[in-house]
Amino acid sequence: MRVVRVGYREQTFYAAFYSDHVRPLDRSVQAPESIPLEEIELKRSVQPTKVVCVGLNYHAHAQELGRKIPREPLLFLKPPSSVIGPGETIQLPAQSDSVHYEGELAMVMGRLCSGVSAEEASEYIFGYTCANDVTARDLQERDVQYTRAKGFDTFCPLGPCIETELNPEEGVEIRTLQNGEVRQQGRTSDMVFPPAQLVSFISGVMTLNPGDVILTGTPPGVGALRPGDKIGVEIEGPGVLENLVQG
Amino acid sequence: MRVVRVGYREQTFYAAFYSDHVRPLDRSVQAPESIPLEEIELKRSVQPTKVVCVGLNYHAHAQELGRKIPREPLLFLKPPSSVIGPGETIQLPAQSDSVHYEGELAMVMGRLCSGVSAEEASEYIFGYTCANDVTARDLQERDVQYTRAKGFDTFCPLGPCIETELNPEEGVEIRTLQNGEVRQQGRTSDMVFPPAQLVSFISGVMTLNPGDVILTGTPPGVGALRPGDKIGVEIEGPGVLENLVQG
Repeated sequence: MRVVRVGYREQTFYAAFYSDHVRPLDRSVQAPESIPLEEIELKRSVQPTKVVCVGLNYHAHAQELGRKIPREPLLFLKPPSSVIGPGETIQLPAQSDSVHYEGELAMVMGRLCSGVSAEEASEYIFGYTCANDVTARDLQERDVQYTRAKGFDTFCPLGPCIETELNPEEGVEIRTLQNGEVRQQGRTSDMVFPPAQLVSFISGVMTLNPGDVILTGTPPGVGALRPGDKIGVEIEGPGVLENLVQG
Repeated sequence: MRVVRVGYREQTFYAAFYSDHVRPLDRSVQAPESIPLEEIELKRSVQPTKVVCVGLNYHAHAQELGRKIPREPLLFLKPPSSVIGPGETIQLPAQSDSVHYEGELAMVMGRLCSGVSAEEASEYIFGYTCANDVTARDLQERDVQYTRAKGFDTFCPLGPCIETELNPEEGVEIRTLQNGEVRQQGRTSDMVFPPAQLVSFISGVMTLNPGDVILTGTPPGVGALRPGDKIGVEIEGPGVLENLVQG
């Protein structure tokens, strides 16, 4: 199932997403059983208490940067204030001259999760969505710590759908498109640490809450965003996460 | 005023804290106007959406480590899941052989805050409390990114009171006591970037929400925690934040 959070006649609710309509998942909402897509607005699908990210998690991206494959997942955090939804605008901050897109597959946690094994992990994952780990590359190099470079407001687009049936370990294609041109392309089977291992590693450090999000790293081909760009992250299932860029 | 969050007869509410009693701040609670301290339990005073921390923010601590004074505040994040309250237990994780205390002054934000100047900052600060930026020193060195080293559950004790009248720029003493012995000592006037500058810098990157917390860095004298330790962070006004350590 593809789950979305929608706005409809001043209500906001979760719904199942189909090619031309949605069906509200909450029976208490004042809405028909089926609503055409033209009548709804896609909202931010998740409001995580934390966004945990993993660096250098695609073999091909680590090679591209000339970096060693990490022996353990390399963790960092984006603040919840950086999250925006599909169709919202990425704001380029004055502090940076080099803001990059990084298209990623994101996991959305479904249950409170602490110290789980990789074997159990799938029971705790609600589904998968698209993410853009927007990064001020110049500040990332200057600060060493990634927090500022990756923590600006609007630097974490997520959405549009949460696909509950995806199996990334089988290999799902992920692409990033800048104004319609493919810039990044990879398969999730190229991940150094697949989702189940990430959940196990991260939940061994910090308790994950329902709605928390894990960004699983970016494939090769990162590059700069420019004002006026339309940037899209595309994964079959979650769909296309599109955002405009403002200078 | 010293603000605390207290548990009293199955209710939890904010109260003003005095030497031997508290006074509920919310008139809707079922409680007398004055409650003796023996009858209440101190709870976690804040539930931040994010905890923003600043590295190397005391001249004397940067000297102690042989590091240059940073030209801009060095930011990192602790996840909200790391927060515990006064009297709760710091759990030493199996992944580390060297977990350190770092006593700090913490700011609690009172209003939504984005892009404010240092001059306006004080209007957005609700008050100050004590913090312990518990850190797995070995993992901090190995990972380079601080997220795992500083992000374990229980690694962010905060409390006990939020002092709304404190003026750290005048110089307030901060001490860390391990089993009653003074280990860290510093004055907030030794900060490289005082609180108002930190609020301005951080809010220029990320929107701060009411209840969000900023840890302002640690003075010299950090050291290792051992199982069974009682670790206290003491600041006149916010009081003494005491936590036990479990191996």
